[in-house]
Amino acid sequence: MPTSAGFEEMWRDLAPVGRSASSGGYFRQPWATAESELRAWFVEQCAARGLTVETDGVGNQVAWWEPAPSVQEGAQRSSRDPGVLTGSHLDSVLDGGAYDGPLGVVSALAAVDVLRARGFEPSRPLGLGVFVEEEGSRFGRACLGSRLVTGATTWEEARELRDRDGVLLGDAVADAGLDPSTGLLSLDRVGTFVELHVEQGRDLVDRDVAVGLASEIWPHGRWRFDFTGQANHAGTTRMEDRHDPMLTYAMTALAANKQARLSGQRATFGRIAVEPNGTNAVPSLVTAWLDARASSDDDLATLVEAVRRQADDRAGRDGTSLVVTPESVSGSVAFDADLAARLASLGDWPIIPTQAGHDAGILSAAGIPTAMVFVRNPTGVSHSPDEHAETADCLAGVEALADVLEELTR
Amino acid sequence: MPTSAGFEEMWRDLAPVGRSASSGGYFRQPWATAESELRAWFVEQCAARGLTVETDGVGNQVAWWEPAPSVQEGAQRSSRDPGVLTGSHLDSVLDGGAYDGPLGVVSALAAVDVLRARGFEPSRPLGLGVFVEEEGSRFGRACLGSRLVTGATTWEEARELRDRDGVLLGDAVADAGLDPSTGLLSLDRVGTFVELHVEQGRDLVDRDVAVGLASEIWPHGRWRFDFTGQANHAGTTRMEDRHDPMLTYAMTALAANKQARLSGQRATFGRIAVEPNGTNAVPSLVTAWLDARASSDDDLATLVEAVRRQADDRAGRDGTSLVVTPESVSGSVAFDADLAARLASLGDWPIIPTQAGHDAGILSAAGIPTAMVFVRNPTGVSHSPDEHAETADCLAGVEALADVLEELTR
Repeated sequence: MPTSAGFEEMWRDLAPVGRSASSGGYFRQPWATAESELRAWFVEQCAARGLTVETDGVGNQVAWWEPAPSVQEGAQRSSRDPGVLTGSHLDSVLDGGAYDGPLGVVSALAAVDVLRARGFEPSRPLGLGVFVEEEGSRFGRACLGSRLVTGATTWEEARELRDRDGVLLGDAVADAGLDPSTGLLSLDRVGTFVELHVEQGRDLVDRDVAVGLASEIWPHGRWRFDFTGQANHAGTTRMEDRHDPMLTYAMTALAANKQARLSGQRATFGRIAVEPNGTNAVPSLVTAWLDARASSDDDLATLVEAVRRQADDRAGRDGTSLVVTPESVSGSVAFDADLAARLASLGDWPIIPTQAGHDAGILSAAGIPTAMVFVRNPTGVSHSPDEHAETADCLAGVEALADVLEELTR
Repeated sequence: MPTSAGFEEMWRDLAPVGRSASSGGYFRQPWATAESELRAWFVEQCAARGLTVETDGVGNQVAWWEPAPSVQEGAQRSSRDPGVLTGSHLDSVLDGGAYDGPLGVVSALAAVDVLRARGFEPSRPLGLGVFVEEEGSRFGRACLGSRLVTGATTWEEARELRDRDGVLLGDAVADAGLDPSTGLLSLDRVGTFVELHVEQGRDLVDRDVAVGLASEIWPHGRWRFDFTGQANHAGTTRMEDRHDPMLTYAMTALAANKQARLSGQRATFGRIAVEPNGTNAVPSLVTAWLDARASSDDDLATLVEAVRRQADDRAGRDGTSLVVTPESVSGSVAFDADLAARLASLGDWPIIPTQAGHDAGILSAAGIPTAMVFVRNPTGVSHSPDEHAETADCLAGVEALADVLEELTR
């Protein structure tokens, strides 16, 4: 089967899974129906390629393409040679796009097809992997699967996280038929990690190229802002007698936007929960999450501190109170520069930064040489039903990934 | 049983129903468990007083204390004399207080006890009533029960309303075992309506009196603001490329507050729904509800128009769009001034305005002479777990209501 037919068939398989009929976007939250279906699909696809998937105790998956014994002998290498892992994630943000995550998994499978069509046999183990809860859309902790695997987050901490309905992560994992006591995916065999991902910006569009490699991930994080006021009647309470946390929040959302614009960084309040959230009641509590990213660790700290200070000032005027809790903060990640330069030379691909977090960032921070391959996104839109990549660009991505994997496992 | 013991026993009966263990507030939404329990309790309480409750096709309830035949004969009156209805509602806002609504129902029952203890026999029918969905906390339409009964809202329109989970009002009513085709409560026998309610402000505190009567209800209403933008990645999307409806909303919430403060009116955004409501996504849609109240119909229109204009301006700058939909708007209600003056003279009670909507306002607007009795609220707080009234004031309210009912049915 030609690469394009295999890729497109896989893409068609995934298209309906977890898709909202109204928005056209995807709801593929971890340890729930759509994501379970996708993980079963991954097992089938690997099996169709003669590869066996190991699923760890929280749902991370890997299937190893082992070097043929003759190749190992000829090259005087043992089967314990450090392998190369490639893959991404299958979960989505709420109402997300089709490409963020699945493109990396489908491309990994399609790249194996390309390598085999080329008659290539790896001389090191080549793994195809899927990490769980990359988006943090359910339990609020981005890259949770890779954080657990690298030890950046412990299971003891993770299992106490709760989703919006109050479900404990530990219970959600158990309900999905998984048992964390059976252990987590081992990274012992992973000498290099490569993640292909749709670009979430317009750098490649501006450069007029289909494929690029990553230089770095901006430092970024999530901070929960709890604004507490006093519930009261929206009609009878005089404006001057109120302690309305919605006002403190509203000013903070505008301040965060302004601070980010002025400094060339990013700050967003995209998620909010209000209590009691009734039309005729002044709220007692507004909880909102700040997503902030900056080009350096210092700039990120300065940005978040500036938002917090303005929020505190306003809380003083509103008679409300504010508690800020960091939920997940990732320092800057510089991917292995020598590796990126070596791989970029295969296709004369540009090396560009990203503001988005990825499992690749977590593995890189854990000391594993890591590279990312980006595929052009014509509008730059992501985390949206409108997210898109042209099929020709996706196929160029598959070929590029195959080139990279051949280079790393030859 | 003395009045105080009967009142306090009823109050203890109601205390645990629909109460949140965490906040101490009440969740008594219409056509759901807690509210059904309260309506069954009302049937029992009436039965204990020898009164039979009629429940109409949507859940409004009334029990008539009929004049004794001898009294009717002696007074040369027929049983078709216009009666006097008193009562309130049993539903609450989300996380509301104990008093808003139930105080009027419990006081109506306790006032019957007082009248009987006095040896009083009414010479006109005296009805005890409960209206459903007064708060509009589930389906967004305040005073829905009384609106249906007076024809201010038709069943054909009401049954299409949806709650936050998408449940149709028509289905919710049917699921509660009610059948609207059996008809609605008739107001033919209602010559006068009297509603006792906890004050939702501090007018009586400032006057240092336990009881007052109502002069008028401010015009008020609810407007849904739909701010539409473009979902996108919160990390990678440059600030200048965004169409973020959260910003338009935030400025609008601040503008509404400022407009209301400057004009001495009321404006509140206490309820919001965000899509997709993810930390790392710029929202595609922010829906927020404006509760606005003003001292005249013109002032209310001016206030809402000022908020809308500022929101539109900001939407233009944010590249978002705005649609404003009025959901329920009530014009000013002036209660029957002669009736209020006549009743106030019974206890030298002050006559004060309110900014809160009530079923009494709906019945008054429908041409039924109507009066309201307010009971002092020491903090003015309402629509909150902190809502409170002292027992001594509640008992003074019961005595006042009994005096009013005796005056109206003697």
